Amino acid sequence: MDTLNIIKIGGNIVNKSKQLDKCLDEFLSLTHPKILVHGGGSYASDMCQKLDIPIQMKDGRRITDGRALDVAVMVYAGLINKNIVAKLQARSANTLGLSGADLNIIPAEKRSGTEIDYGFVGDIEAKTINSYFLTRLLDEQIVPVISAITHDNDGQLLNTNADTIASTLAVALCETYEVKLTYCFEKAGVMHNVDDDSSLIDLLTKESFASLKSEGVIQDGMIPKLDTAFQALSQDVQNVHVKHALNLANQTGTELSL
Amino acid sequence: MDTLNIIKIGGNIVNKSKQLDKCLDEFLSLTHPKILVHGGGSYASDMCQKLDIPIQMKDGRRITDGRALDVAVMVYAGLINKNIVAKLQARSANTLGLSGADLNIIPAEKRSGTEIDYGFVGDIEAKTINSYFLTRLLDEQIVPVISAITHDNDGQLLNTNADTIASTLAVALCETYEVKLTYCFEKAGVMHNVDDDSSLIDLLTKESFASLKSEGVIQDGMIPKLDTAFQALSQDVQNVHVKHALNLANQTGTELSL
Repeated sequence: MDTLNIIKIGGNIVNKSKQLDKCLDEFLSLTHPKILVHGGGSYASDMCQKLDIPIQMKDGRRITDGRALDVAVMVYAGLINKNIVAKLQARSANTLGLSGADLNIIPAEKRSGTEIDYGFVGDIEAKTINSYFLTRLLDEQIVPVISAITHDNDGQLLNTNADTIASTLAVALCETYEVKLTYCFEKAGVMHNVDDDSSLIDLLTKESFASLKSEGVIQDGMIPKLDTAFQALSQDVQNVHVKHALNLANQTGTELSL
Repeated sequence: MDTLNIIKIGGNIVNKSKQLDKCLDEFLSLTHPKILVHGGGSYASDMCQKLDIPIQMKDGRRITDGRALDVAVMVYAGLINKNIVAKLQARSANTLGLSGADLNIIPAEKRSGTEIDYGFVGDIEAKTINSYFLTRLLDEQIVPVISAITHDNDGQLLNTNADTIASTLAVALCETYEVKLTYCFEKAGVMHNVDDDSSLIDLLTKESFASLKSEGVIQDGMIPKLDTAFQALSQDVQNVHVKHALNLANQTGTELSL
């Protein structure tokens, strides 16, 4: 089996041109085939603020109304995606920016049946990912760059969490490839203490994750990220890591294990 | 030779959901292979206004500064492109939205050597269009939907007029296909009198265009559009028409001839 690198970049790295450049250099030093999945960093929130679109929260979860969806589509599938594509083309990587609607790569269902109406949020499943075209693109030495926008096959675009997209793609493709799924951001990996750069956790098992979570050592946005990452492992994805975005090519980082 | 339909939709059709739906139905009734090229209608200007980005004009020409380029990328390559892709997927057409940076389909050069600095505007040439991947996509029954964003192969996105993109693609592909290039908008074609719907010009030759232009019958934005259209004809594109966007599939419209 070929090794497929699926890298999810997020946080503010996508908003910082020089750091993004360095991250893309690291990304390109990985062996082909590879897929890049990206979020939108703080840019979408900034744009909502500039356009006077209130950020609606319910029970700590974000609600995506029609105007917020338009901003997500503009920022993720437009500005961030096409800038990354242009930067990778400048590095001679033949790159194709995709939303989940393109080639019907990631069909989704608008979230329903929950107490809260999350708005235009799409839930996705590994079994409906269009692996055929992704594999064809990878065979052609093309680098897919995938934004966190999906669609419901009925003409409606939807917003799906980028961590979930990376994990679901990894599950969908782990029968065809040995998948290395890497979440990367501004820290060296999962930390015992986010303020202490020497406190990297080298290996995180499902059990140690549960206890560090209950002790409050791992908290906030890292919890759903790691939940998603462990889901990938439990669905046969071969390797899952959390790494620094500027350090993709070497071994330092947190390895996840069941 | 297969017939390739290249349809450029513009004007405000892309902003009006119901009309866009009807236009896309007409588009899909055309035989495959086909390519859709789109502009951004008034949406980009509206967005600039909302974001307090002044629309800079010099000698009647628009200047694209960095912020205006970001808006163009967000609106054209993001919002408009992905909404069209989702609408076509809902109609079971396997669609791929592309900017010129994706697969390096449309390399451009930042306009220079002009008296006016137009900013981030890209000039393109038929000989540098990446026909190989476009043809591969068309062979796979995929419908490319192309936005008016290009890149300079050095990491910089650029804005290129959508009429020019349609015409340049037509020239690049007319050796492989018999190309039918159609510009469509809110009128039945080129009119003697824009206020009289019965004044359609069925056939416009280069000579009659020159005289109607000098008489002031054809004016404003229609002049560069037709200049671009006649350039395609003079570079061996087989058929060029101007039609109503809701009437793509039948014969009514203006046929251009050298």
